[in-house]
Amino acid sequence: MQKPTSKPLISVLPDSAFDILSRVRERRPRVHCLTNTVAQNFTANVLLAAGAVPSMTVAPEEIGEFVARAGALLINLGTLDHERREAAEIATEIATDEQRPWVLDPVFVDCSRSRADFAKSLMTKRPSAVRLNGAEFAAMAQADPSAAALERHALDRLCVVALTGAEDAITDGARTVRIRNGDPLMAKVTAMGCAGTALVAACLAVEADAWLATFAALLAFAVAGECAAARARGPGSLAVEIPDALASLDRATLLSLARVY
Amino acid sequence: MQKPTSKPLISVLPDSAFDILSRVRERRPRVHCLTNTVAQNFTANVLLAAGAVPSMTVAPEEIGEFVARAGALLINLGTLDHERREAAEIATEIATDEQRPWVLDPVFVDCSRSRADFAKSLMTKRPSAVRLNGAEFAAMAQADPSAAALERHALDRLCVVALTGAEDAITDGARTVRIRNGDPLMAKVTAMGCAGTALVAACLAVEADAWLATFAALLAFAVAGECAAARARGPGSLAVEIPDALASLDRATLLSLARVY
Amino acid sequence: MQKPTSKPLISVLPDSAFDILSRVRERRPRVHCLTNTVAQNFTANVLLAAGAVPSMTVAPEEIGEFVARAGALLINLGTLDHERREAAEIATEIATDEQRPWVLDPVFVDCSRSRADFAKSLMTKRPSAVRLNGAEFAAMAQADPSAAALERHALDRLCVVALTGAEDAITDGARTVRIRNGDPLMAKVTAMGCAGTALVAACLAVEADAWLATFAALLAFAVAGECAAARARGPGSLAVEIPDALASLDRATLLSLARVY
Repeated sequence: MQKPTSKPLISVLPDSAFDILSRVRERRPRVHCLTNTVAQNFTANVLLAAGAVPSMTVAPEEIGEFVARAGALLINLGTLDHERREAAEIATEIATDEQRPWVLDPVFVDCSRSRADFAKSLMTKRPSAVRLNGAEFAAMAQADPSAAALERHALDRLCVVALTGAEDAITDGARTVRIRNGDPLMAKVTAMGCAGTALVAACLAVEADAWLATFAALLAFAVAGECAAARARGPGSLAVEIPDALASLDRATLLSLARVY
Repeated sequence: MQKPTSKPLISVLPDSAFDILSRVRERRPRVHCLTNTVAQNFTANVLLAAGAVPSMTVAPEEIGEFVARAGALLINLGTLDHERREAAEIATEIATDEQRPWVLDPVFVDCSRSRADFAKSLMTKRPSAVRLNGAEFAAMAQADPSAAALERHALDRLCVVALTGAEDAITDGARTVRIRNGDPLMAKVTAMGCAGTALVAACLAVEADAWLATFAALLAFAVAGECAAARARGPGSLAVEIPDALASLDRATLLSLARVY
Repeated sequence: MQKPTSKPLISVLPDSAFDILSRVRERRPRVHCLTNTVAQNFTANVLLAAGAVPSMTVAPEEIGEFVARAGALLINLGTLDHERREAAEIATEIATDEQRPWVLDPVFVDCSRSRADFAKSLMTKRPSAVRLNGAEFAAMAQADPSAAALERHALDRLCVVALTGAEDAITDGARTVRIRNGDPLMAKVTAMGCAGTALVAACLAVEADAWLATFAALLAFAVAGECAAARARGPGSLAVEIPDALASLDRATLLSLARVY
């Protein structure tokens, strides 16, 4: 017989995820998103559909004020121009000072060395979580995205690491959970990962356990994507169905569809 | 028996609104939109659906030429970076010189003092109209958005003031009209207010009475939103249905659904 | 009896177009798009629907790295700010050095003299193709867009010239083909031309004959637009149906609908 451990019961996690989603709907946290111009519109609509309120200014002279009063912060490194770099420095500074949770999405760091360097320097400012794909993890951690490498990276950075792909893995070094939801068609719509990370920020605004918040966001997003894909006729309609599915996602649907292990 | 006044008959206003909408469809005015990057795509599609032609360059060395030959100008202060500030100064200067009507949308001025200051300085350049919500009005006018405060603000600035929310109020100080159309789901789609203000600009391009033009745009947008909401399954599909509803809006529908008082 | 010429048989062109589309789906080329902020999201989704992978950074310090490893480059001059100008210079330089095909979309050059001058200077850097409408051609070539003027422009610039409108014409000076597909409703959705040019870049990435690649992209886009319009209820739903139609376009549909002469 296995001896009991401190690991959470996998079976109750989806229930906790829905509790967090419900708090987003009730409290309507404002999430400040420093994100790329390709993803802004879809990201704002995903946040609104989930019950949160997006703000997206980039201007260095304004972003501090916006972050100081937000519930959480998203830093996404897509279309990283000069002003965005400067804004990211200020925003993460303020988030640290004001103890606002924040999440990093190091988009395409595998394609640009200066961006990878910048992402690494942001990691030293202690985000609550980082969300990336396999190629981006490899560029950030100089290691293949094995379970052990993810856990070591999380422990070293004191940061939740969420690797997304055909299957998602979320770890804080001590606890690791995997999600097998979503649909391959989601990869055919731009800004899908970016919007998922924005949802992580929304959940961080209402849940102090960053690992649980990250899991909740990615599970809800993947299940909503699955519901949306069931109704979609292609990538165009999938992008429309996702906010609809997220806005109407209920506990029974989330619990029945969740594939978590 | 009431003595006749110079006030317009509320009952004929929706008819006048549709006349203005028809002129937009016939004349296809180009509307130059200096607007935030989150709202650009949806705003352009709403203008096209209404029959207008959007242009959206921000570059200070180009915007003057674009504004000089446009039918009207929109200045929206979302994602207000350095270049947008400079461009807004130039664009409003040219609009004044060339007597082009323009409308101001002071997005999120309640969240940033420097933006509120900038918005107030733009108000001294005499926009034809300003469209804002209650929190934004409070930040601009240092007063609650009561009917009296709206009218005083309009008279002081010689500018139509349009307050949007669950109910819209449009006043030039002498005339005030209220619209009870639209749908709560519209608040769950990003850039909804921004696109509505762009439609105000399109109507200003074809109607010299700024109060009537503002009313026409906001009524048409709210009624189209209501038609769209009746078909939508959530916020994702609502964003798709709105251009469809606006493009196919006819006089009978507008007159039968308008709730104006 | 007509003597045989070196002109391609019009009847086999749609078949070749579908071959090129199939190669895009198989090879999934990354297309770097320096494009305007209004068009970015729709453009990215059209590329993904066609099987390509979009990247869109504008930052001058990063764009070289992104272009060097891309399959093709799109330069679109909409919302042409300072950073975009600088980025366009760098990107086209790298594309030349690395022998990457690239296509120019000189949006609204008829509205801004400085933009027209910039577009002309880019033409001296030898794009594989340029895609524009009649007014833009007139501003670029100081000539009406007659068949002869298009062919002369193509010969002078050693560049494929694609004029789009109610009917598309694609010429390299020696070969000219016309496409009578598409739907008038496409003009009511923003970024339609921009996305079509992005698809030209995707086809250039997998086909060395730039004239054939340009034709393939514009035919596939016009036919997909026609299929989409048959299902759409207005411009909002058309924008959703186009990625769906493009993702599911098959050879039989393309061949049966193509109107090429």
